[in-house]
Amino acid sequence: MARQLSRIMRPDDANIAGNVHGGTILKMIEEAGAIISTRHCNSQEGEACVAALARVERTDFLSPMCIGEVANVSAEITYTSRHSVEVQVNVMSENILTGAKKLTNKATLWYVPLSLKNVNKVLEVPPIQYARKEQEDEGKKRYEEQKLDRLETKQRNGDVMLPVINPEPHTVGYSQSSLIHLVGPSDCTLLGFVHGGVTMKLMDEVAGIVAARHCKTNIVTASVDAINFHEKIKKGCVITVSGRMTFTSNKSMEIEVFVDADPFVDEPRERYRAVSAFFTYVSLSKEGKPLPVPQLLTETEDEKRRFEEGKGRYLQTKAKRQAQMQQAAQQ
Amino acid sequence: MARQLSRIMRPDDANIAGNVHGGTILKMIEEAGAIISTRHCNSQEGEACVAALARVERTDFLSPMCIGEVANVSAEITYTSRHSVEVQVNVMSENILTGAKKLTNKATLWYVPLSLKNVNKVLEVPPIQYARKEQEDEGKKRYEEQKLDRLETKQRNGDVMLPVINPEPHTVGYSQSSLIHLVGPSDCTLLGFVHGGVTMKLMDEVAGIVAARHCKTNIVTASVDAINFHEKIKKGCVITVSGRMTFTSNKSMEIEVFVDADPFVDEPRERYRAVSAFFTYVSLSKEGKPLPVPQLLTETEDEKRRFEEGKGRYLQTKAKRQAQMQQAAQQ
Amino acid sequence: MARQLSRIMRPDDANIAGNVHGGTILKMIEEAGAIISTRHCNSQEGEACVAALARVERTDFLSPMCIGEVANVSAEITYTSRHSVEVQVNVMSENILTGAKKLTNKATLWYVPLSLKNVNKVLEVPPIQYARKEQEDEGKKRYEEQKLDRLETKQRNGDVMLPVINPEPHTVGYSQSSLIHLVGPSDCTLLGFVHGGVTMKLMDEVAGIVAARHCKTNIVTASVDAINFHEKIKKGCVITVSGRMTFTSNKSMEIEVFVDADPFVDEPRERYRAVSAFFTYVSLSKEGKPLPVPQLLTETEDEKRRFEEGKGRYLQTKAKRQAQMQQAAQQ
Repeated sequence: MARQLSRIMRPDDANIAGNVHGGTILKMIEEAGAIISTRHCNSQEGEACVAALARVERTDFLSPMCIGEVANVSAEITYTSRHSVEVQVNVMSENILTGAKKLTNKATLWYVPLSLKNVNKVLEVPPIQYARKEQEDEGKKRYEEQKLDRLETKQRNGDVMLPVINPEPHTVGYSQSSLIHLVGPSDCTLLGFVHGGVTMKLMDEVAGIVAARHCKTNIVTASVDAINFHEKIKKGCVITVSGRMTFTSNKSMEIEVFVDADPFVDEPRERYRAVSAFFTYVSLSKEGKPLPVPQLLTETEDEKRRFEEGKGRYLQTKAKRQAQMQQAAQQ
Repeated sequence: MARQLSRIMRPDDANIAGNVHGGTILKMIEEAGAIISTRHCNSQEGEACVAALARVERTDFLSPMCIGEVANVSAEITYTSRHSVEVQVNVMSENILTGAKKLTNKATLWYVPLSLKNVNKVLEVPPIQYARKEQEDEGKKRYEEQKLDRLETKQRNGDVMLPVINPEPHTVGYSQSSLIHLVGPSDCTLLGFVHGGVTMKLMDEVAGIVAARHCKTNIVTASVDAINFHEKIKKGCVITVSGRMTFTSNKSMEIEVFVDADPFVDEPRERYRAVSAFFTYVSLSKEGKPLPVPQLLTETEDEKRRFEEGKGRYLQTKAKRQAQMQQAAQQ
Repeated sequence: MARQLSRIMRPDDANIAGNVHGGTILKMIEEAGAIISTRHCNSQEGEACVAALARVERTDFLSPMCIGEVANVSAEITYTSRHSVEVQVNVMSENILTGAKKLTNKATLWYVPLSLKNVNKVLEVPPIQYARKEQEDEGKKRYEEQKLDRLETKQRNGDVMLPVINPEPHTVGYSQSSLIHLVGPSDCTLLGFVHGGVTMKLMDEVAGIVAARHCKTNIVTASVDAINFHEKIKKGCVITVSGRMTFTSNKSMEIEVFVDADPFVDEPRERYRAVSAFFTYVSLSKEGKPLPVPQLLTETEDEKRRFEEGKGRYLQTKAKRQAQMQQAAQQ
């Protein structure tokens, strides 16, 4: 059931230091996931459908990928609920000159099948066979957890990024950035909605600009928080992708990114929040070593609160990682 | 000495109504100009150079181009001064199914040859031969006029677009927009500077979003004012392209667009204004007929002043066009 | 009747050594061919049509093209049968700094006009005028030859590439590769079918990855065998492009590439083989000199058989080339 997708990394996939953008990798991951889950959902008799991305679990970027290397992306369906599909995607970078291979990412994505005739209708997913009963039980647990998290994050979404006039260096206002993008045909699936991967690529682009504005060095994506896709974005919309720094540790920066959609032509609807997530970036020296990051200066009460929340996420992730390493060492 | 360049227009070159973006056409015009002028400037013994875009004269979009049509772009050198080259570019749209051809644009571009070894050194241009003495005299007159205009516009550049919180519909703040773009390798010439055509495409994209936000209908580029390229933009920069509406007539909108460059990585330099220009857009019905445009609501003194200046440009262009039509009728 | 198409080669058109991908060139060749043949087939009164690529004759890549050079692609119709058009395309690389021009490719393509209203209906082609009677006779001979060859290759198509676990270096399994691509709107013609040039570009990309995995050096396309387009590929399909090495000589590698289409949404149809072809690659040193190639290790009976078949093609091409050189020397 596994699928593989390979592509050579080109200059436009990377920053000027030659490191492939995290967004390029996220886009390939999502394409592999969309193909395998759409194929699975159409494998039985019944209404034709397209799998739409609903959520990406937290993902670490384990090692950098460079121009000229081949990205090998493989995808596998690991769980199905009545209306959703869980896909596990692995990315390996391969230096085809030396033959060296490295694991770059392990990602988990959730898709929902939407009818080709009626995009508001969610279809049923054909069940998969599990080799062992525990696989189904573990999948069910992951399914319940993500369902809860999606509900929670939906409530956080009233926030708006306000502009700042003449900001000081290292403040939140100094590095905050936003871009607008007119959704074109190549950004969209057969249903006329933006591919989740296209959205994630733009989010990573904005996060990277925020990080670079803050520390003025070569920066790379270290991890992405769980991303929930609350609402579909239609062809012809203008999307505004905004990023602001929320937290800095000694060697990392956390950036919050929002995606707002404006269905501006021939649509009565107001602007809405479609996606939001946290990206973590690190700063690298010319030799690829992590550099210290200038501390973020917080000014308003909201900025101070967000900094503390970011610190909480940072410490939690750190603790989790240490526990995993201890566990691994004991085995 | 004329050159031709042809390309089929694809869905990604156009808006959802199927009209090819003005920016796509400007990019093709500039590529044709860059090829012919770089070739000319290297046609004699001496230092190798790349022609850099310095200015585009005012250009009208005479008829729309659609997906599936072939754009035929032809370029010719019409004047050379000691350090600059004037190129005349014509664009024809061709429906290869019916054979129908239409003139879409007539554009005039000025290029300056920069040394491949030292990008700050402007080289000498080999003179061209004129069929008639008047051609040289007319060219010289155009050369002096554009030189004066470039000097003048360089002084207008202190202006900055300020953000507005919760703006009312049809105000300047309501539709103003900006995008950021990280300059990648494929955006650049051999010298590592952004192609003028890439910059113009982004400028048209922002202007189009401003126009669509104002009138919420299908919009197309009607004309572009003279564009002066004050400063080069280097690979690795982040550019901010900002647009705001300055004037509306009954059936057209004028949008001012700035390009600011941030040389943010490993560069001591401050943000600088690289390019600015005015774009005029019209709103079209589903049948392709011009629609009335909601009047722009001006609030501040600056907005009122810019509205009056825009009105001045509008009336001047209108008078010029009427004079040309009368002249044509008398011939 | 000749047409020209010019474009500057950018970083994304090339590999890390700066050599433009064969696939980029094949894509430009096909676009020039599609424009001239679609225009010709619509030059008479009657049903509107789009020319679909049916076959590309064997093509040699005579000299490399580099970033910053201009590709000049010119096309001419050289023969018409009742239902097909033969187009001859030449590609010249031009260094616009030195003025040096080199012939890169001479390609021959066959197109078939499909009705815009009914894509399964092949229309009649308006006849062209020949300057000399022999031109028509020679064209007819080429037409009959390709017709025969297309019939033959259609039968070869049952083959499938199986994955190999832990392969040894220099075996077939070690370098075999595949990529999957979801066909988007910009990949397609007005009829909603993939442009032949898009398919060829993906085929060259896979062949290049196979060649680089085998010899771990800078590699370039040396030639492409005749490519037959057996079946159209529709928008929304997923295509799987697979490549495996079939033969190595001292200084060249032959790679077989398949394109399989999966009409996975809304189509009851099974996966089908759309295109297949052989690509020949050479390995280059940093100075651009051909390097020896590690010999391919064949393991199974099928691999040994394919190696012998590849050897046959290699010796035949070599003999043909020597005969041409002798002929040229005698003239």
